[in-house]
Amino acid sequence: MSIDTSVNAAVTITDAEIFDAHIGGKLVVSSTMALDTKRDLSIAYTPGVAQVSRAIASDPSMHATHTWASRLVVVVSDGTAVLGLGNIGAAASLPVMEGKSALFSQFGGLNSIPLVLDTTNVDEIVETLVRLRPSFGAVNLEDVSAPRCFELEERLIEALDCPVMHDDQHGTAVVVLAALTNAAKVAGKDFADMRVVISGAGAAGIAIAEILGNAGIGDVVLVDSQGIIHRDRDDLNSIKARYAAKTNKGGIIGGIREALDGADAVVGVSSSKFVEADLEAMNENAIIFALSNPDPEVMPEVARKYAAVVATGRSDFPNQINNVLAFPGIFRGALDSGARRITPEMKVAAALAIAALAEDNLSADYIVPSPLDPRVADVVAAAVAKAAATAK
Amino acid sequence: MSIDTSVNAAVTITDAEIFDAHIGGKLVVSSTMALDTKRDLSIAYTPGVAQVSRAIASDPSMHATHTWASRLVVVVSDGTAVLGLGNIGAAASLPVMEGKSALFSQFGGLNSIPLVLDTTNVDEIVETLVRLRPSFGAVNLEDVSAPRCFELEERLIEALDCPVMHDDQHGTAVVVLAALTNAAKVAGKDFADMRVVISGAGAAGIAIAEILGNAGIGDVVLVDSQGIIHRDRDDLNSIKARYAAKTNKGGIIGGIREALDGADAVVGVSSSKFVEADLEAMNENAIIFALSNPDPEVMPEVARKYAAVVATGRSDFPNQINNVLAFPGIFRGALDSGARRITPEMKVAAALAIAALAEDNLSADYIVPSPLDPRVADVVAAAVAKAAATAK
Repeated sequence: MSIDTSVNAAVTITDAEIFDAHIGGKLVVSSTMALDTKRDLSIAYTPGVAQVSRAIASDPSMHATHTWASRLVVVVSDGTAVLGLGNIGAAASLPVMEGKSALFSQFGGLNSIPLVLDTTNVDEIVETLVRLRPSFGAVNLEDVSAPRCFELEERLIEALDCPVMHDDQHGTAVVVLAALTNAAKVAGKDFADMRVVISGAGAAGIAIAEILGNAGIGDVVLVDSQGIIHRDRDDLNSIKARYAAKTNKGGIIGGIREALDGADAVVGVSSSKFVEADLEAMNENAIIFALSNPDPEVMPEVARKYAAVVATGRSDFPNQINNVLAFPGIFRGALDSGARRITPEMKVAAALAIAALAEDNLSADYIVPSPLDPRVADVVAAAVAKAAATAK
Repeated sequence: MSIDTSVNAAVTITDAEIFDAHIGGKLVVSSTMALDTKRDLSIAYTPGVAQVSRAIASDPSMHATHTWASRLVVVVSDGTAVLGLGNIGAAASLPVMEGKSALFSQFGGLNSIPLVLDTTNVDEIVETLVRLRPSFGAVNLEDVSAPRCFELEERLIEALDCPVMHDDQHGTAVVVLAALTNAAKVAGKDFADMRVVISGAGAAGIAIAEILGNAGIGDVVLVDSQGIIHRDRDDLNSIKARYAAKTNKGGIIGGIREALDGADAVVGVSSSKFVEADLEAMNENAIIFALSNPDPEVMPEVARKYAAVVATGRSDFPNQINNVLAFPGIFRGALDSGARRITPEMKVAAALAIAALAEDNLSADYIVPSPLDPRVADVVAAAVAKAAATAK
């Protein structure tokens, strides 16, 4: 098997190249200072370090300034929902978490280490991170299965006095909001008048529903494997029940077909395919985000027949909705501002900052910056830090 | 306050220099590979990484080869016995643990991260590391108070299928054995005929007693704050009681004075001072290791009046007994060989390898290599790996 990263097969990546790149792992820890002389050792280690430890013992605030912990993001997973692979366990999830830590370093200028946990018990994961609290500055939860991920994130936010974010929820939601902000401009739609369908009510779907509500979208309709989520469904878990009360103001019932009929936008975050007959029933100048990876719910060339703007999660099509646009800047902004929580306002601010970066060259094929755009993390961090400061 | 790192005051280090060097911490995590193009991201992160995770899920042995975990040493402390500062807590201990991780990187070529734990409960520390097991390859316990450290290390060795070592015990013991091996040559003494007094029966003292026994020293006499440890004492904790049965073959009773009378060597690993009248009672060509930092049990210029060889823990005197001679190579050798445990044989092999490096230029002022000698870790790692392979 090999992976096409482009419509141009010339950049095909082979299995051998991928496996070779992973030998020995993808992260390296090094010292910030030279350790070549006795003098160096006397500063970084004994006897000099004793003074720094003594100072922190008498003034705990110096832990934030004189250790690496306050700028260290731990990428935490129990391996229960890894990419599209499902519950493959903590050990097998580690390459993904190493990659995430590498991205925090590369794009956020933050230190990050993966901590994968050989337990799926929410109490035990919370307890473990509480015990490790002096070791880190923020928690990026990753690839934890729904609906456990909702409880786990809430519990960690309560238990830890530092930023905690489940990126599969909120990183995705932030970038979707950024993209939808610009897509609406291209399509000539107002948020207040829009009905947005979300296909998939797992981690990402729920968080997208939340942030679109916070951003002033007229109505959101969530669709799960059993159909449209509405108040009269008796098969909903507690988080879906909560959103049944907050979404679908029109009380639509049925499946994806009924949901899409007259909708302005659809965001696909499950593996359920979109069929053309359903997409055809959407409003004029529809917006279609088909975000499943590697296989979108509908291929862009098909989606474009029914939509003014199309986006996917893939790097080989225009408008890639990629979390790397969000999480490095969100965490850096939160840490820069000393925020203890990542609030809804900070997430919306991140989305608007991402959207603003693409605003000057807006088109149907350019609604978000490239994930490799080096400006993004700085701009997002600044917006998030400002939103954090405003909330204080 | 400032620190003299040399008898020459010209290399004085100021407080400001030490604190400045610690701002933001002393470690940095970075990616082993470039992440500059979409292609790079497709290899290190999605979609490429999914193949590596899938491969580990079906062949768990690939966790060792295709993640960073198998070469990652976690430096674990609960902050209960930090340097000479005592129980200052996990947060204040972090600069020391960062320094240790930096030394693992610099001298061992290994990755290392500090994990400081906001609990002093042995059960909870074991449980935490068991849960994190897929995240790392070895555990360096650091600055955990005695006698808890003995139980904690034993429990972790049982619970984890990877190398675990409490460096304050065994790192110190290995370097003491290395130094004593060469000191005995300089002083013209045979291990089998020697009586060695250890002043201090904490983490280091107990481990030194253990390794000297394994290396064939004739007799060892441990002295704690209540005097010589012997079979008839009824105030001993379980670990000291165990060593009361294994040491002091002559059944000596009394205090440090009685212990030193006719002894061949003394190793100081408590803050109790040595007085000249007691040292004078030692055998001809005595060996004095005064290892307390920063204030040795006796200053070298005084000790030399009564001894053929003197060593301290300080970099500004000859013969520095410094753990950095041991732990980087011990852990690398253990990881290189795939050893699940660090055995007594591996520790003795490490000591003899360190001693052998100084053998060619042996003198009363050169019984161990410099901690900065770049040959040390490689030679120690090779000896440890060989001892591990022999034991299999």
